[in-house]
Amino acid sequence: MIDLTHGIAPTNVLQGALVLANMLPYMPEGVHLAVVDPGVGGERKPLALRGGDGRLYVGPDNGLLLQAAERLGGVEAAVELAESAYRLEPVAQTFHGRDIFAPAAAHLAAGLELGALGPAVPLEELVRLELPPPEVGTRRIRTTVVTIDRFGNVQLNLTSAELDRVGIEPDSQVEVAVGFERYFAVAASTFAEVRRGDIVLYENAYRSISLAINQGNAAEMFGVVLGQELELAALR
Amino acid sequence: MIDLTHGIAPTNVLQGALVLANMLPYMPEGVHLAVVDPGVGGERKPLALRGGDGRLYVGPDNGLLLQAAERLGGVEAAVELAESAYRLEPVAQTFHGRDIFAPAAAHLAAGLELGALGPAVPLEELVRLELPPPEVGTRRIRTTVVTIDRFGNVQLNLTSAELDRVGIEPDSQVEVAVGFERYFAVAASTFAEVRRGDIVLYENAYRSISLAINQGNAAEMFGVVLGQELELAALR
Amino acid sequence: MIDLTHGIAPTNVLQGALVLANMLPYMPEGVHLAVVDPGVGGERKPLALRGGDGRLYVGPDNGLLLQAAERLGGVEAAVELAESAYRLEPVAQTFHGRDIFAPAAAHLAAGLELGALGPAVPLEELVRLELPPPEVGTRRIRTTVVTIDRFGNVQLNLTSAELDRVGIEPDSQVEVAVGFERYFAVAASTFAEVRRGDIVLYENAYRSISLAINQGNAAEMFGVVLGQELELAALR
Repeated sequence: MIDLTHGIAPTNVLQGALVLANMLPYMPEGVHLAVVDPGVGGERKPLALRGGDGRLYVGPDNGLLLQAAERLGGVEAAVELAESAYRLEPVAQTFHGRDIFAPAAAHLAAGLELGALGPAVPLEELVRLELPPPEVGTRRIRTTVVTIDRFGNVQLNLTSAELDRVGIEPDSQVEVAVGFERYFAVAASTFAEVRRGDIVLYENAYRSISLAINQGNAAEMFGVVLGQELELAALR
Repeated sequence: MIDLTHGIAPTNVLQGALVLANMLPYMPEGVHLAVVDPGVGGERKPLALRGGDGRLYVGPDNGLLLQAAERLGGVEAAVELAESAYRLEPVAQTFHGRDIFAPAAAHLAAGLELGALGPAVPLEELVRLELPPPEVGTRRIRTTVVTIDRFGNVQLNLTSAELDRVGIEPDSQVEVAVGFERYFAVAASTFAEVRRGDIVLYENAYRSISLAINQGNAAEMFGVVLGQELELAALR
Repeated sequence: MIDLTHGIAPTNVLQGALVLANMLPYMPEGVHLAVVDPGVGGERKPLALRGGDGRLYVGPDNGLLLQAAERLGGVEAAVELAESAYRLEPVAQTFHGRDIFAPAAAHLAAGLELGALGPAVPLEELVRLELPPPEVGTRRIRTTVVTIDRFGNVQLNLTSAELDRVGIEPDSQVEVAVGFERYFAVAASTFAEVRRGDIVLYENAYRSISLAINQGNAAEMFGVVLGQELELAALR
């Protein structure tokens, strides 16, 4: 059993989905259990999925699992965890992690067939998370904060190809607009290229663009939260 | 080896005792090591217990272990961890977790008899934690905050039977009095029944009554700490 | 695999080095992987070391590994992790933990020879952390905060022998000067000797002198941060 993280912010399904999608490519194939579940006890279905590469996923039908599964070969089958024999009855209405998801993952790991856990769910009915795409203008990009890690590094919904389109490239000076505030960052490929305290715009280890402060906490300085928008522009 | 939690608040023996009692019924039988130990180095005895169901417990004699053991079949035998051969000598006066408790647990897991660890302790001498019982009036209940989890959910020393006695039942509107402040909550069986931001009074997954804010942090909003009292009353 | 901690403060190499040196004597011999790496992607070398006692160490060349290795028998050989076959290529410029250090540790654990990982590094070129020694006067000691743990206990760069030299011994009343503030502490061997809320100067379980508040948080009360200096003096 490998614990990937207990550090997802409460109720933050999007952060959980992105962390799972970023980490699973480095993990052995297995049964991947993930629970970030603000809708526990409501209408949302409890799910198990089988990926195209044979991986199995267990968690709530709120988009948490799909980013990972689709990055790793897509979803081949989905079932709703409805079979009472594989739940801890009586199921608590506020803790399906204990009473539905963990037992299902354990039974799958012990060899149970996916189909035994409950009825099939049509793949087109699975709930998806939609990330707002960045708005790329001629000189400016409007983008969204999608995760903040424990170092305070701020991951944006943005790729280096999109930065190229507004003329931001390695060593560019960049204006970062957060609400009415303006900050000055430098595009760099690693923290070691800049001075302590400098704001760095860089491609992170998962190929997303992030903002950081060298040896500091960017999220605290900017005062940003998940889902917040900010704008980037090259300075000439 | 299974790590249950490293998230108990420093010196909070009561929280540790309740978390242990809540979680152990879901764990395989084994040697259960727990250390929340503000009295380290003083008069309190280091203990090992054998439960009626064969489980073994290791920890300080401050009440930490008893709630769990008594929920799972009672205590059959207790010894003081006095035998130097099973300690890491010289024992540090401020870290018995390392020098007394963990070595005793490891020796028990390796098959050592309980009695080899030290002299028997009469069961009636074991230190107990007393939770103040709720004061149940005709219309109001005065109760105590016993744990706060990482979501900010506030667990009370209260059962649903006690709520019934003051007329609080599913869908009741409830007044929550914290010091001079008044809040309005709804009794519900799951967060999905209420709106985002609503205050919910519910039976949690361990069958205790708790207060939460749907997708929010109730402990922060109320400004409550462990051991604080608050009052509940049904609104008509 | 044994996880020692995920609790080192971001970029705090000194804290990581001291925690590693304190904990490894209690761990079985093995491959010890440690990453606190503010210089990732820059000039600092990625390293593997072999200790005189056969332990293997993997981490950045910033002093993180040396305190532990030297406490346990010294360093016998060092190599730079330059061999591409044992890295996850392409290596991300900001996450060598994933792409260089963890793969090297895994290959060593699987039996790879140290020398296969890359060219030897002369031992005298390894980067060292220098702790400022305490200034011991006739009546006063000026010393440095080297770690703060999750209880808020403040570990100083100081030994009990140095306290002896200024006349601080068990039961001494001690003045603690932090900037312009003065606090009164008592030298004790365990928290149980003092009252709740008292400030205690004690030798911790790793034989360093620390300041704590019995059942409180000393770091918060003093407002100290790592690297900060404070002064101690015996009161007569």
